[in-house]
Amino acid sequence: MPCQPSPRLGRVARVTTQPVPPEPTAPTTAPEDLVARLADLQQDYAALQARGLTLDLTRGKPSAEQLDLSDALLALPGEGVHTDADGTDVRNYGGLQGLPQLRRIFAELLGLPIEQLLAAGNASLTLMYDTLTYATLFGVPGSERPWGQEERVRFICPVPGYDRHFTVCEALGIEMITVPMTPDGPDAEAVAALVADDPSIKGMWVVPTYANPDGSVVSEDVARRLVSMPTAAPDFRILWDNAYALHHLTEDEATSADAVGLAAEAGHPDRVVLFASTSKITFAGAGVAFLGSSPANVAWFSKHLSAQSIGPDKVNQLRHALFFGDAEGVRVHMRKHRDILAPKFDAVIGVLAERLGEVATWSVPRGGYFVTLAVQPGTASRVVELARAAGIALTPAGAAFPYGDDPQDSILRLAPTLPPLDEVRVAMDGVATCVLLAGAERAAD
Amino acid sequence: MPCQPSPRLGRVARVTTQPVPPEPTAPTTAPEDLVARLADLQQDYAALQARGLTLDLTRGKPSAEQLDLSDALLALPGEGVHTDADGTDVRNYGGLQGLPQLRRIFAELLGLPIEQLLAAGNASLTLMYDTLTYATLFGVPGSERPWGQEERVRFICPVPGYDRHFTVCEALGIEMITVPMTPDGPDAEAVAALVADDPSIKGMWVVPTYANPDGSVVSEDVARRLVSMPTAAPDFRILWDNAYALHHLTEDEATSADAVGLAAEAGHPDRVVLFASTSKITFAGAGVAFLGSSPANVAWFSKHLSAQSIGPDKVNQLRHALFFGDAEGVRVHMRKHRDILAPKFDAVIGVLAERLGEVATWSVPRGGYFVTLAVQPGTASRVVELARAAGIALTPAGAAFPYGDDPQDSILRLAPTLPPLDEVRVAMDGVATCVLLAGAERAAD
Repeated sequence: MPCQPSPRLGRVARVTTQPVPPEPTAPTTAPEDLVARLADLQQDYAALQARGLTLDLTRGKPSAEQLDLSDALLALPGEGVHTDADGTDVRNYGGLQGLPQLRRIFAELLGLPIEQLLAAGNASLTLMYDTLTYATLFGVPGSERPWGQEERVRFICPVPGYDRHFTVCEALGIEMITVPMTPDGPDAEAVAALVADDPSIKGMWVVPTYANPDGSVVSEDVARRLVSMPTAAPDFRILWDNAYALHHLTEDEATSADAVGLAAEAGHPDRVVLFASTSKITFAGAGVAFLGSSPANVAWFSKHLSAQSIGPDKVNQLRHALFFGDAEGVRVHMRKHRDILAPKFDAVIGVLAERLGEVATWSVPRGGYFVTLAVQPGTASRVVELARAAGIALTPAGAAFPYGDDPQDSILRLAPTLPPLDEVRVAMDGVATCVLLAGAERAAD
Repeated sequence: MPCQPSPRLGRVARVTTQPVPPEPTAPTTAPEDLVARLADLQQDYAALQARGLTLDLTRGKPSAEQLDLSDALLALPGEGVHTDADGTDVRNYGGLQGLPQLRRIFAELLGLPIEQLLAAGNASLTLMYDTLTYATLFGVPGSERPWGQEERVRFICPVPGYDRHFTVCEALGIEMITVPMTPDGPDAEAVAALVADDPSIKGMWVVPTYANPDGSVVSEDVARRLVSMPTAAPDFRILWDNAYALHHLTEDEATSADAVGLAAEAGHPDRVVLFASTSKITFAGAGVAFLGSSPANVAWFSKHLSAQSIGPDKVNQLRHALFFGDAEGVRVHMRKHRDILAPKFDAVIGVLAERLGEVATWSVPRGGYFVTLAVQPGTASRVVELARAAGIALTPAGAAFPYGDDPQDSILRLAPTLPPLDEVRVAMDGVATCVLLAGAERAAD
């Protein structure tokens, strides 16, 4: 592996009433102090276990309270309402590229011409998988041959990153190389150095806005560098998974860089394929996913899609269009999510600052669904194990790394959105106890 | 190609008030008589053109009247209704295999254990494409290697057949071999002879009930032969596309052979993968698709699906479960479709019998969405061209054959479901004029 993972956490500022955490680049350690506290911490942990908790901080799922915000969808479009603004009967077959009435709303929000944005089924993950499957079987515009006929295909994965991205690569036999994340997104210089000479590197993953899991936001400079850097592969693709484009936790709302537009300006119009969805806007399992890219990529994707589908569920797309009304309707809706989520993130950061200031560092995200917690090297797996034994489910250590391999065993992903606020506080207090105990155990070793 | 296409049309009986057509195996010709009528027919055609029609018999789409039967879905599940019978919140992520409440209904209708039936998105076409994509990339249970690493992969396509099946094969580089249809389904002896010695033949398409387009129904004997025949390929698959399982046009309702069960009995449990959907039960573009097969195939499909999806749209699945209530609810609903469709098919058969008895043959389906019309060899393309110029859109000649190649240029697929009944009569009368004129032109040649 030419580039070892070396995670740095975002240090984005956030309006919060909680104490600002220490510089979140690498966990500081206080081994002697911890060793002295080992017996106390073991007692704390025994007390935690005795509570018999059943709490879950594993996945980035919306809470029932968030899902309730979209309950009007459950009775939409309403009996007798089955034509869109253009007069199309949405109940019947057809319309491979999705309903214009909904694409128009999200084209505005995502900053793309409507012709360059497809609306699809309920999962952007499926669009990403299909993009890489089509690439493997047929190649992309600019490919010399199908990727599956190359001796080796590799992808750059910024770490920490999203485990389902890694799963798609692994499923399709795409090898993964890591680069570190920075507060401004992936380390663009490290990426540029890798791709300059190696034609087997065919692409990379980017979660540009409020990244999963470290919350960082790709700066305009980093975006420009990624879309303009020379690549040895003529068919290099950036899979720009803008899953949290509108998912602000503060009033200081990040604006996503217009990667598709910047790529065209830089003379690489086909480099970026953007993905988004309403999974964390309306219903996680019953939303609408989007794919945006250059005209050539959209034509390429549509051509292959036409053998696989006659068209997406247009009734669900009309349902969403009527629910939102327009782009502003989506923005207003997202503020209701913020009102529910911000206190949960404040609670997480509050507990971390109060209890772990000396022994761990963490991200303070302005948006998205996760907090990244960096504990003392070599203890992340033990923290997960201790938490599990105390009834608190955490994402497995290593999940934010390809092949599940966190070389420092230090990164934990916390997902505080699903449980109610009081449970988040209880769970985080338990996690803090586990982090301290794991650190003390290691220091005493 | 080891087996030349040699289409024979179904001769299934049908309760109808219309005259029974002549034996529909090959068109009889009456060239001398036709030549004499050429001038009259040219006048008829000029009159037809002068009417300036715009009619469409191209695709098997439900009519607006049929879609209206399911309009209650447009307001279901209803505000506040978001848990299924097991208490699952259908709005959130998860449930890769689909909602048990809906799978239970269709497991009963399709004759499979619920564990062997997945409920998915809005298109069985996508499930078929994904099945063959997974086979190409990874192989199926029993494969020695991914199909994409075989020198050559071939599929048997009974003809006439469904053009979208052929498109999937062509997209994935699977070569197609044809066998004739019989009134009892594909010519099983021809299939058995082909697959016995040739390991490159990895599978076949079957539309078992009311086949697209000839309406034939696979008999229990044919089904047994197909699932028990020895195959040189250890991983031979029958893609059993039961799209019209419940789509009866008469009270003489066909029962689909239980291919998955018969295959298990025959010692080839993994041979059959069944597909179905509610596309022609509820909404063509917004229904639910199903995949049913052996436990090993279902586990195989689910494993690969898990990299592509977190789960299907469970809200839509609950919507359907509430709409139907139970399996009997589906059967009752299908009778309403029959009431709308049977008169259209009667009109088609009526016009054909009245005007083309001497020069063409056709299927008389007991169910499904199509009538197959066999015109005089060498004239099908000309019929489509004449019809188009008179404002009547027909499915392209050859569409029912792989690569669009009908070697006899004689088979037309008529799709009378979409237009209102009076338009079906007008369109069919126009088609009859075109068939006669094309025949007369050819006879005079």
